[in-house]
Amino acid sequence: MNRFALLFFLLLIPFLSSAQEDALAEDAFFIRRIYDEALTRSRCFDWLNYLTQQIGGRLAGSPQSAAAVEYTRRVLDSLELDTVWLQPCMVPYWVRGEKEQVRVVNSLKMGTVELNGLALGNSVGTGPMGITAEVVEVKGLSQVDSLGESLRNKIVFFNGAMDATQLNTFNAYGKAAGQRVWGASRASRYGALGVLVRSLTTRLDDIPHTGSTVYEDDAVPIPAIAISTRDAELLSRLLRQEPVRVFMRSTSQNLGEVPSFNVIGEVRGREFPEEIILVGGHLDSWDVGSGAHDDGAGCVQAMEVLHLIRRMGYQPKRTIRCVLFMNEENGLRGARAYRESSDERGEYHMAAIESDRGGFTPRGFTADGHDDVFTDKFRKVIEWLPLLEPYGLALRKGGSGADISGLKGQKGLLFGFEPDTQRYFDYHHTPIDGVDVVNKRELELGAAAIMSLVYLLDKYGI
Amino acid sequence: MNRFALLFFLLLIPFLSSAQEDALAEDAFFIRRIYDEALTRSRCFDWLNYLTQQIGGRLAGSPQSAAAVEYTRRVLDSLELDTVWLQPCMVPYWVRGEKEQVRVVNSLKMGTVELNGLALGNSVGTGPMGITAEVVEVKGLSQVDSLGESLRNKIVFFNGAMDATQLNTFNAYGKAAGQRVWGASRASRYGALGVLVRSLTTRLDDIPHTGSTVYEDDAVPIPAIAISTRDAELLSRLLRQEPVRVFMRSTSQNLGEVPSFNVIGEVRGREFPEEIILVGGHLDSWDVGSGAHDDGAGCVQAMEVLHLIRRMGYQPKRTIRCVLFMNEENGLRGARAYRESSDERGEYHMAAIESDRGGFTPRGFTADGHDDVFTDKFRKVIEWLPLLEPYGLALRKGGSGADISGLKGQKGLLFGFEPDTQRYFDYHHTPIDGVDVVNKRELELGAAAIMSLVYLLDKYGI
Repeated sequence: MNRFALLFFLLLIPFLSSAQEDALAEDAFFIRRIYDEALTRSRCFDWLNYLTQQIGGRLAGSPQSAAAVEYTRRVLDSLELDTVWLQPCMVPYWVRGEKEQVRVVNSLKMGTVELNGLALGNSVGTGPMGITAEVVEVKGLSQVDSLGESLRNKIVFFNGAMDATQLNTFNAYGKAAGQRVWGASRASRYGALGVLVRSLTTRLDDIPHTGSTVYEDDAVPIPAIAISTRDAELLSRLLRQEPVRVFMRSTSQNLGEVPSFNVIGEVRGREFPEEIILVGGHLDSWDVGSGAHDDGAGCVQAMEVLHLIRRMGYQPKRTIRCVLFMNEENGLRGARAYRESSDERGEYHMAAIESDRGGFTPRGFTADGHDDVFTDKFRKVIEWLPLLEPYGLALRKGGSGADISGLKGQKGLLFGFEPDTQRYFDYHHTPIDGVDVVNKRELELGAAAIMSLVYLLDKYGI
Repeated sequence: MNRFALLFFLLLIPFLSSAQEDALAEDAFFIRRIYDEALTRSRCFDWLNYLTQQIGGRLAGSPQSAAAVEYTRRVLDSLELDTVWLQPCMVPYWVRGEKEQVRVVNSLKMGTVELNGLALGNSVGTGPMGITAEVVEVKGLSQVDSLGESLRNKIVFFNGAMDATQLNTFNAYGKAAGQRVWGASRASRYGALGVLVRSLTTRLDDIPHTGSTVYEDDAVPIPAIAISTRDAELLSRLLRQEPVRVFMRSTSQNLGEVPSFNVIGEVRGREFPEEIILVGGHLDSWDVGSGAHDDGAGCVQAMEVLHLIRRMGYQPKRTIRCVLFMNEENGLRGARAYRESSDERGEYHMAAIESDRGGFTPRGFTADGHDDVFTDKFRKVIEWLPLLEPYGLALRKGGSGADISGLKGQKGLLFGFEPDTQRYFDYHHTPIDGVDVVNKRELELGAAAIMSLVYLLDKYGI
């Protein structure tokens, strides 16, 4: 890659004016300074420590989410920005309740077997007595439709596995996540009593992964619980040998809507303050674990960008705004409130960068945008590759992030920060997503990568 | 990077014959199959589990190293190779003895302070009574020479820190490791009684990192103990305030030479059996921890290459040989025995690939070779980049590996497998280098990367 970058440089140089050469050297030098700062004097890992260890899991509406709003607002205040504010939004408040129970009952082969379960977010509970019913295994949503009415009064077990051969684990996740999001609604159409869902990870282990389920408007809500991959394998094996009945119990419930906030801080641009460059992550997380990779990492990286700007005495031409979105996990209400308010005020996000794929070693950015402008604008950004490739950063077309994709109508460029994807789904939405599985250097390198792109966006515009 | 790979392809296609196009497609397809196999049916992670959990730390000469020889030989036997054998070598047998003690005594500021220490490998002990002496801090070897005779009867504290701003942590390690390897010899010249060495990691924590020290032939051997980075910072702070005396005690000793083995298995080539492609790692590790990244990972990846060859029914043209070297950590005796025997028999290693930089997500390979042939041969290998880049693999000039670099005289190409370097020195030579910090997918991707290069080397030769 460095080889190609070098080649690119060498091919370019004959066509550059001496002023352009100077600018290139200045940029290379500034980006090297960003990395030096981030790797030696950044504060993002300390902030992540606090967010995860002192506050913990931060599901929207929870007391922890309120503490996270207050903590990050105070941190942003301490960075001497031009403005720090809280943007109100109403969020659904879902609570898990008592520890879930999932149990194979009266198996001829194995007697009673306890399975590791976690209710899916937004799921209704089973009622205090739980549900016991025969289990029917399916591999995905379409199989539900073909089984149809035979699912009445059954528990439907979605056992679609993530495809381990996908090099980018997000591709495998994208293909398998439908059963978690829509499985309960689909099974409910045919009178099923509840659903069990195989956890979304390529690992074979005992850790269940939660995540949101969505009830379609016309669906009778039925309870949905994720079970660990090893338990999914066991249940599937058992089903090949005998009919299986499962007891499932969850006291989870939706407590209605409560007020919450996006946390926002910005440094105002000197020349083009109306052109906004957003950096963001989402402040809420699941209630289990402490949301370190998902998405404490993205939040502290976005905050670190403003910290780096202040530490390095950088005076941006454009407005650099850090947004910590609320309720990405189970409603995207923060994202909606932000977009609506931004559109109303006629703002223009020249660029937005979301970090929500974990705090791993950076690989680059995916870029997205409105069809009217994307090709031209992306062509401009691609010219900066020789400055980014020495740091292992690529740029490719691809989705940006759930919180910022609604800004596409403003016709700027949207970026998703892209770290190495191999480990993300080991931890995603689990009790083990803690700061102990985040590497400090990898987190800092991510902040440096995002700041480097912000610098180029700010200096040259698009 | 994919963008460049694609460009490369598109530029090439007009010049390709249809036979060449077919070969390219066949290679792309085969490499995809390698990855599919490695990510779904490999055994390397299970082997690593056994090596680390059932056997543990495997310092050359130890009972554990003998158990590792026996275990890996049995695994290779089970793969139905053409030949599996043990190659004898004599190795130094060093033992750590009782738990080391390092203690600041009678500090005015802090009283008595225990420091976390680990004797360096090959180090002599202090004698049962330990040593107490005044501490002098230096940043590196050259400072020892300038202080000279003032170090007599002192403990010299080498406090050179690894440079956190190096993106490739191995560069930072390379610059800082001299004090660990040569510090005791250098300080001994001027009559120092012992040395303390700051652990080689960019992390600030309480975990000491061992590693080899080497006594020059004319040096009076003095004891050397590594202390954790946090303790090094504390000691340095204290030294700025007052004279500091430290008590250090280690009962480590060298027990002379004992017999051991390299473990070797090979599949003989059908067309050019005399052209050998070596894949290897080192079977020994430090006694603390269980040598998971260093270098259990490299060993099981090399073994997995032979496993993949057999599972996929691949018939190599050339001889593919897996070598698990003994005693890389504190003597390189296995490497020497292998090279001497190979040279004597007039063998030709067309290529050798060592994996000894941890089991992290692959980034590519560094390549090295004899000056007479390197440029031409490397040019040939570079042509395969479009097949490797879709898997995130680059090729660059750089060192290969300590065990294989002696084969340079045979004028083949030498490769070092290069994974992501960010986390390696968190674990390197410590009690926490266990299988729990190795990610199964990342390990498997490494095996697939090495097998892909082996396939191209075997099919096309160089």
